[in-house]
Amino acid sequence: MSHIAVFGAGSWGTAFATILAHGGNDVRVWGRRPELVAQINSGVNEDYLPGVDLPSGISASTDPAEVTDGAEIVILSVPSQSLRTNLADWGPLLHDDKIVVSLMKGIELGTTKRMSEVIHEVAGVPSERIAVVSGPNLAKEIVRQQPAASVVACPDLEAADTVAAVCSTSFFRPYTSTDVIGAELGGAVKNVIALAVGMASGLGFGDNTKATIITRGLAETTRLAMALGADPRTMSGLAGVGDLIATCMSPLSRNHSFGVKLGEGMSVAEVTEQTKQTAEGVKSCASILDLARAHGVDVPITEQVNRVVHEGVSPQDMVSVLLSRARKHEMD
Amino acid sequence: MSHIAVFGAGSWGTAFATILAHGGNDVRVWGRRPELVAQINSGVNEDYLPGVDLPSGISASTDPAEVTDGAEIVILSVPSQSLRTNLADWGPLLHDDKIVVSLMKGIELGTTKRMSEVIHEVAGVPSERIAVVSGPNLAKEIVRQQPAASVVACPDLEAADTVAAVCSTSFFRPYTSTDVIGAELGGAVKNVIALAVGMASGLGFGDNTKATIITRGLAETTRLAMALGADPRTMSGLAGVGDLIATCMSPLSRNHSFGVKLGEGMSVAEVTEQTKQTAEGVKSCASILDLARAHGVDVPITEQVNRVVHEGVSPQDMVSVLLSRARKHEMD
Repeated sequence: MSHIAVFGAGSWGTAFATILAHGGNDVRVWGRRPELVAQINSGVNEDYLPGVDLPSGISASTDPAEVTDGAEIVILSVPSQSLRTNLADWGPLLHDDKIVVSLMKGIELGTTKRMSEVIHEVAGVPSERIAVVSGPNLAKEIVRQQPAASVVACPDLEAADTVAAVCSTSFFRPYTSTDVIGAELGGAVKNVIALAVGMASGLGFGDNTKATIITRGLAETTRLAMALGADPRTMSGLAGVGDLIATCMSPLSRNHSFGVKLGEGMSVAEVTEQTKQTAEGVKSCASILDLARAHGVDVPITEQVNRVVHEGVSPQDMVSVLLSRARKHEMD
Repeated sequence: MSHIAVFGAGSWGTAFATILAHGGNDVRVWGRRPELVAQINSGVNEDYLPGVDLPSGISASTDPAEVTDGAEIVILSVPSQSLRTNLADWGPLLHDDKIVVSLMKGIELGTTKRMSEVIHEVAGVPSERIAVVSGPNLAKEIVRQQPAASVVACPDLEAADTVAAVCSTSFFRPYTSTDVIGAELGGAVKNVIALAVGMASGLGFGDNTKATIITRGLAETTRLAMALGADPRTMSGLAGVGDLIATCMSPLSRNHSFGVKLGEGMSVAEVTEQTKQTAEGVKSCASILDLARAHGVDVPITEQVNRVVHEGVSPQDMVSVLLSRARKHEMD
């Protein structure tokens, strides 16, 4: 039995805690709000996973030191844009040869850094002790123990194996990889592509159109990931196309649903107001576009999503631009 | 204006004829049954595309010579397993430097030949005059003029360009390629993967599981295609992952729907009886498995689908086998 700390009591942090608890570990969740911590200690997380009974083996606290004390592995699942601020407080708690695992799917605004880079920079954790988990893992299906697989990536395969061992259950199957960049890029860009696919859906386009946008989205994610040094095969795997498909086809995906409402004519502010949260892709599209421009990579879908979200272009115009791009040979 | 012959008045043959007619061509459709030919001549195809008004510029006949007389391009869209027999009759009509285009998505039983190989072998058409069209193109969305893109593959890029030119419309965008093998393999194997995904859906599994099966399905299609000499990039494009996603996510896909009914507990015979047709993947899975074995390629999903369809294994057992395959590193 390992002692594992999970920072973040949102839907994915809590769902991952349930996987770890089913794996027989002692799981301690950090939450910011005392009332949410109290819920988890009473066996539920009604705010993020309503109707789900959490398994035994999970406790929660608002005290970072209490959660990390004695932990061999620390899981980070906080909003991407808050990570740097959070780590300023928690950084010293992540040392002592702990393995730090990022569940986060974003690129930092301003710095265009991946989450593992922020962890390394702010908390001083060596890269060989930072792992990333990414794959087709809709939280609401995971807590219902629907079979799922995922990628655990770390430059040190032994550390990846350690993480894979603690989260391996009858319904969750982790595969190891050393391609951290690929896993992080796949996880981040897919949210932006899901917004575009959602918008097409909200505008009434069918599955031919949506499959075309997903295919082009995979191509631009792969171009960007390769420019950053990722293995293109990661993009053809669970953390690439797998996660992209699950996010783009599921009604449970926040980014896809957010895009549908934009396509139906609501503004970003209206959707945010109605859903009480901003989709990750809305926040990340600007930083992903900055990252692509810095590396001279063409990312037409991300560019168009950014125009809709930040420049007030209509989704209809966005889809028209995407579908009218002149290109003769598919590989060009 | 080109004169183009279309052999086959099913849903995809007729839908492709509408694209060609919208492109301003003179389109003559061959159909086997006089009553269906009469329907098309009156502007509808109620048997396969109910409720759709065909555009002007399409006529139909039961006489192969009448249809091909003066045609520069001949489109073939008949059932894969009937092609050889049909070509024994039509073969001589496909000469005179005509370009022959295959819309068919299957592998011949017994010979394990691709459709372009059968055309070359039986009708003696040179490979440089045989093109293949494949992509995320659900017929029922095409006839509603939903935007779609596709790949036109031919070893001779000039011939591919000729075909692309006649089927380019405001709603249908063809991209050229020289990878005939990749386009044909993508089109054939996706039907088998869609059966597997449909079965998982019928059994109640969610989008994490379905996305995982699609991802693994893409991997096995890519392995097989590469063993046959295809370009792996085709598998990451419209004729590969694009077509696979559209087929696996759409309720309009026959193969996916057939799989759903199998997953819900019906037998192959019962589904065939109820839907009045056999899904292409049901016919092709055995020949694709033979092809893979002949090339020493591991295709676990095709193998399991074949066991359900031809050996009476339950879909539940199939999914359990697929999800329990032991593998540590994702790239293995």
